[in-house]
Amino acid sequence: MLKKICFVIGSRANYSSIKSVMTAVKSDRKFSFQLVLSTSSVLQRYGDVSNLIQNDGFSIDEKIFNLIEGETPLTMAKSTGLCLIELSSVFSRLKPDLVFAVGDRFEVMAVVLAASYMNIPIAHTMGGEVTGTIDESIRHAITKFSHIHFPATKEAAERIRKLGENKDNIFYVGCPRIDYVKEVLSKKRIYNKNILSQGVGIKFDINKPFIILSYHPVTTEFEKIDVQTRQILDCVNTLDIPTIILWPNADAGSSKIAKLFRVYRENKLLKKAHFYKNLPTDLYINLLDKCLCIVGNSSSGIREGNYLGVPCVNIGSRQNSRERGCNVINVPFEKKKIINAIKFQIKNGKYKEGKLYGDGTASQKIISVLKNVSSIKIQKQITY
Amino acid sequence: MLKKICFVIGSRANYSSIKSVMTAVKSDRKFSFQLVLSTSSVLQRYGDVSNLIQNDGFSIDEKIFNLIEGETPLTMAKSTGLCLIELSSVFSRLKPDLVFAVGDRFEVMAVVLAASYMNIPIAHTMGGEVTGTIDESIRHAITKFSHIHFPATKEAAERIRKLGENKDNIFYVGCPRIDYVKEVLSKKRIYNKNILSQGVGIKFDINKPFIILSYHPVTTEFEKIDVQTRQILDCVNTLDIPTIILWPNADAGSSKIAKLFRVYRENKLLKKAHFYKNLPTDLYINLLDKCLCIVGNSSSGIREGNYLGVPCVNIGSRQNSRERGCNVINVPFEKKKIINAIKFQIKNGKYKEGKLYGDGTASQKIISVLKNVSSIKIQKQITY
Amino acid sequence: MLKKICFVIGSRANYSSIKSVMTAVKSDRKFSFQLVLSTSSVLQRYGDVSNLIQNDGFSIDEKIFNLIEGETPLTMAKSTGLCLIELSSVFSRLKPDLVFAVGDRFEVMAVVLAASYMNIPIAHTMGGEVTGTIDESIRHAITKFSHIHFPATKEAAERIRKLGENKDNIFYVGCPRIDYVKEVLSKKRIYNKNILSQGVGIKFDINKPFIILSYHPVTTEFEKIDVQTRQILDCVNTLDIPTIILWPNADAGSSKIAKLFRVYRENKLLKKAHFYKNLPTDLYINLLDKCLCIVGNSSSGIREGNYLGVPCVNIGSRQNSRERGCNVINVPFEKKKIINAIKFQIKNGKYKEGKLYGDGTASQKIISVLKNVSSIKIQKQITY
Amino acid sequence: MLKKICFVIGSRANYSSIKSVMTAVKSDRKFSFQLVLSTSSVLQRYGDVSNLIQNDGFSIDEKIFNLIEGETPLTMAKSTGLCLIELSSVFSRLKPDLVFAVGDRFEVMAVVLAASYMNIPIAHTMGGEVTGTIDESIRHAITKFSHIHFPATKEAAERIRKLGENKDNIFYVGCPRIDYVKEVLSKKRIYNKNILSQGVGIKFDINKPFIILSYHPVTTEFEKIDVQTRQILDCVNTLDIPTIILWPNADAGSSKIAKLFRVYRENKLLKKAHFYKNLPTDLYINLLDKCLCIVGNSSSGIREGNYLGVPCVNIGSRQNSRERGCNVINVPFEKKKIINAIKFQIKNGKYKEGKLYGDGTASQKIISVLKNVSSIKIQKQITY
Repeated sequence: MLKKICFVIGSRANYSSIKSVMTAVKSDRKFSFQLVLSTSSVLQRYGDVSNLIQNDGFSIDEKIFNLIEGETPLTMAKSTGLCLIELSSVFSRLKPDLVFAVGDRFEVMAVVLAASYMNIPIAHTMGGEVTGTIDESIRHAITKFSHIHFPATKEAAERIRKLGENKDNIFYVGCPRIDYVKEVLSKKRIYNKNILSQGVGIKFDINKPFIILSYHPVTTEFEKIDVQTRQILDCVNTLDIPTIILWPNADAGSSKIAKLFRVYRENKLLKKAHFYKNLPTDLYINLLDKCLCIVGNSSSGIREGNYLGVPCVNIGSRQNSRERGCNVINVPFEKKKIINAIKFQIKNGKYKEGKLYGDGTASQKIISVLKNVSSIKIQKQITY
Repeated sequence: MLKKICFVIGSRANYSSIKSVMTAVKSDRKFSFQLVLSTSSVLQRYGDVSNLIQNDGFSIDEKIFNLIEGETPLTMAKSTGLCLIELSSVFSRLKPDLVFAVGDRFEVMAVVLAASYMNIPIAHTMGGEVTGTIDESIRHAITKFSHIHFPATKEAAERIRKLGENKDNIFYVGCPRIDYVKEVLSKKRIYNKNILSQGVGIKFDINKPFIILSYHPVTTEFEKIDVQTRQILDCVNTLDIPTIILWPNADAGSSKIAKLFRVYRENKLLKKAHFYKNLPTDLYINLLDKCLCIVGNSSSGIREGNYLGVPCVNIGSRQNSRERGCNVINVPFEKKKIINAIKFQIKNGKYKEGKLYGDGTASQKIISVLKNVSSIKIQKQITY
Repeated sequence: MLKKICFVIGSRANYSSIKSVMTAVKSDRKFSFQLVLSTSSVLQRYGDVSNLIQNDGFSIDEKIFNLIEGETPLTMAKSTGLCLIELSSVFSRLKPDLVFAVGDRFEVMAVVLAASYMNIPIAHTMGGEVTGTIDESIRHAITKFSHIHFPATKEAAERIRKLGENKDNIFYVGCPRIDYVKEVLSKKRIYNKNILSQGVGIKFDINKPFIILSYHPVTTEFEKIDVQTRQILDCVNTLDIPTIILWPNADAGSSKIAKLFRVYRENKLLKKAHFYKNLPTDLYINLLDKCLCIVGNSSSGIREGNYLGVPCVNIGSRQNSRERGCNVINVPFEKKKIINAIKFQIKNGKYKEGKLYGDGTASQKIISVLKNVSSIKIQKQITY
Repeated sequence: MLKKICFVIGSRANYSSIKSVMTAVKSDRKFSFQLVLSTSSVLQRYGDVSNLIQNDGFSIDEKIFNLIEGETPLTMAKSTGLCLIELSSVFSRLKPDLVFAVGDRFEVMAVVLAASYMNIPIAHTMGGEVTGTIDESIRHAITKFSHIHFPATKEAAERIRKLGENKDNIFYVGCPRIDYVKEVLSKKRIYNKNILSQGVGIKFDINKPFIILSYHPVTTEFEKIDVQTRQILDCVNTLDIPTIILWPNADAGSSKIAKLFRVYRENKLLKKAHFYKNLPTDLYINLLDKCLCIVGNSSSGIREGNYLGVPCVNIGSRQNSRERGCNVINVPFEKKKIINAIKFQIKNGKYKEGKLYGDGTASQKIISVLKNVSSIKIQKQITY
């Protein structure tokens, strides 16, 4: 029987994606909870997620420092290699019975290689989806290494089956991120003024309408990032609506984006922008629920956006072909089209809430599956 | 247009699998040839393949020393991480237009991650096949990172298509190993006595009937390796037929096998065995063609065996479900069944030659495809 | 004879310390010039020294990305390990006849271990000095691995001899940094307004009196860095004199300092400060020569300060016991004492120029030594 | 007060050198014992020291797999880099109050850099001695990083003082290896026949006279190793006296030696040799005490040899200038001189026992020092 369940978190986004499952595993005495942090999740520069995680009551078994400075395709590869070296030592010590691979970020390949080469079974959440950037390749490769699949949508479940995975190991449970949104919404909404004032930029007034910009690099378009970032920031400037801008993740190209954020900010080119590295997830969800529109290329507008009915303007190729509800408008990197789409969405207002990415019961379903697993065949074989 | 074509070789087997393509690329002035060696291919302990490669006229751009001693699942993971760290520096310097990923060995994941994270297109040979051991997961994951596919069989080509790869990028060409077999057979057969006497064990007489044993670890059955190796060596002993035993590859578990080889040898338990670490590939092919039967779990008996019509007894799960011709008998790790199968095959003698893994024209076809590629879209997307 | 001379630069400070020697080697046809960049010198966050170096006409053989994010004692150790792994591959390719180890920064240990383990002779500049922080241990350890010593002061030369080095291999040449200062002073002084306006903070007026603050972490006092940084920034605030603040180096603790710099700046606590990550060295020297006083714990106030006669207030233990001229006042981390010392120095004005760290002919002397070396005995032995 | 005392063992020789101190620390309730194994000590190929250590009753906190195959100067550097990366993670978890750096092997630099960069105090045993090979540089560099010194001889203690270390931190205690010899001799001598028969080669008869050959690479003479090894093996052959040959350590060049050992053995060129990878230390000491002469370049003949009065023929530069008693004859790599010296020593027979390297009370003295340390100043400073 599965006993020691190990979670490896590499970033803030990763944490949001699996938190509800972590909580469920931790509070169930049948399981022994193991937690390893790596990559950007241990770094202050990316908002010190490790503090946040400890404050949420999770104890951390090991922190891995493996992010090599540079934020280029080269250092992304190297950071993954270093993570693999360190993580294999950690697995050797913790001896987990099952490792959770969450999503499709570059460092998750290190988790999956360390575990599979060491004959440790892998459970994968959020597999089977379709997007752009290098994540698209990573996600499907992870599927080919994983033993239990917990896709977030029905389409994703079907795609995993088509990829040659045994249907007995595919469990459509919905997205654990939605569990967390549901939980947050069930509580009283508190907009922690202290935290809201900690960002950099204009004084932010929670009671006035605002937009959220969440924008990350597309590693496979590394050379275009400067131009694309300028375009998107020019739109923010033109719109002249208070805008919360979130810090980019640690993918190759991230420092290019961050640098332009700083240039624009320090040259006063963004009159109504407020920058955050470090929004607690519950606060973020409340802000998302309240905003006029979420703009950029984060999956959040598509996933949580669907559940909340938040208008979303999705720019460029990063979320290419990801399943989406009617709350999303796709636009290319063209200033005019971006602005028109945002204006349309603001005018339109909130959409009907959807359940494309689940109904908030993913973690329960996952726990139930784990409890019924008697043993996992470590040797995989494609079904066709 | 593709110009700089980079090959990364990790082992002796890897080299045999791609040599004909290397020769074709090197001799075509349209291309610029790049060669990187890593993992076991640079080590004397595994038969100093780098010498062999240089003697074959290839110049080596870089040698990577990344194999961490131990030969356990842990060190297999770590060696891959170190390979990724070093290889990304090498790619950063060589700036290839295309990298060849060959087969499905553990270190090939480092090739594929370094290239894909750095936006370098990947061509994959021998994808789409089905086997056991960790190679099964690695092979399909590599497919999900690769841009051009050169499968060795029609079934494999179809499987790659089912995995969601665009059929315009799948080229059924046959196995480049068969090209090499064909080339060797077209020459006068020379059994280099000097080399034949270099192995360890009984004096080997090429003019008497003999068996070949080629046997590698199944990493996903790491704990059973000792028992399985003993079983197989006991069969060799019982049969009492002169046997060429080849050294295992660098997978986790290899040192367990090597240790038992030594124990049996030094305790004189194998009266008619001759051990080789270092058979030149052309000599190996000639011996394969001449032997009574090839025994073990190498793919060689299945691939080249089919082309040559050599009787093959395939033991255990390593080649599970790999496509095979009628020259192959599958048996589990049971002494009696192994011995019976070998006796049956010897009695039966040579089979009709087959073309399951190609007709020896793979490299020509690959070159022809490469010449017609105008550009490669670095961003992949699953077809369904 | 020595032919291929390899320089490994790890930081901006490193570059300033060896630039005059690099220029001399590069322009002498007897030598073949090799250059490798590593650690903070390849990173934008530390002012993109690689650009600067290329603009100065040096071609770069290899860039090593090895700085692991975190800036803690842990990541300082890891970054050194990664540098050692990558640098040994680079040396294996470049095959230098001599490697220059410059100064005493943490990553220089990687240079020295890679070279010495690979039997490549090492020349060391700026050895034999005494200071605080981990540099003190590193510097003397480097001496014990080095084959030719080029100390900057007579005392340092004597100390190297006492450390058991053969006196035939010790050449007192002065500090190559002073060569560079001399060269810059010999040219017309240009204060590039474009660059001066690129920093962050108040508008900086070159024609009004100003102070320079150059302050780095003491790794052996890692826990006290926050308190010490606050103290020093409070002094800047109290003094109310325009102050150029330079970015800290990449030692453990650097991000703590940088964070406080940002906090003070964004909370408008430093009314007259201007921050630079990226001052070209020639501009820095001109500013140093012109400033009222240099404050902090950089060696620059002691070395170049002595040559220029610039008043210097040296705070804390980082430069403990380093040889210094009368231009330097030492103070502990006490606000009142720091302020008094600065006021005293401003009132006092410029000091007489000194030659404690050489007269600007170090690089000539080094070249002359290198030309006369016929061979270097790779095996060292202590003299007593 | 010092509480958590951490030992990092990298090889079999390392273990013998510190075992008596480990036993003393482990059995004292004032201390908390921590043990980390790395490099060759975790590998079967080098005689599986980790098993031996566990059988001796020590529990292992962490095993580090960092030895990169190749056994060249390049891989020696890389293995050290990898050890530094892994060891810093281990220290971060174990948080020792003091780390023991033992001797002068290449991987000990990783111990010393990890500890010193992370502000963990270092105690060094066997510092201040003089020898050849890269160990000479490493040993003195370690002294410059260490906080407490436990030299094995008076001369070594004096040399450490001359190196600028504070005499209050230098404690002449003798060599802990002698403690172990004393302990073994105090017990009944048992020559485990089972183990004695486990080596490879001739049947070994403990009751007949025999020689011991213990021979390791000199890394700084990497190119000469083949020639030197042949010379030494030819002597063994000529002498025609039963000879116990011990396996070389993991230094660069070791595989060259091992390869020649195999070539000679498999070509029956050593009629009376018996090879051991894996002699338990107590058995080794008994054999040393009993042998006609110890030949080669191991320090054992000089250290333990002096205490036991065993005749020793020390060949080549590896032990250059190491303090020695009258039991040692030094010879260059010349067959005639080696043979003459061995014959002379055999004729001469046992020498008077000496106390040059201590009287077997080193560990007691070390424990007593550790108990009296109230605190260690982490910042070092040279005394002159």
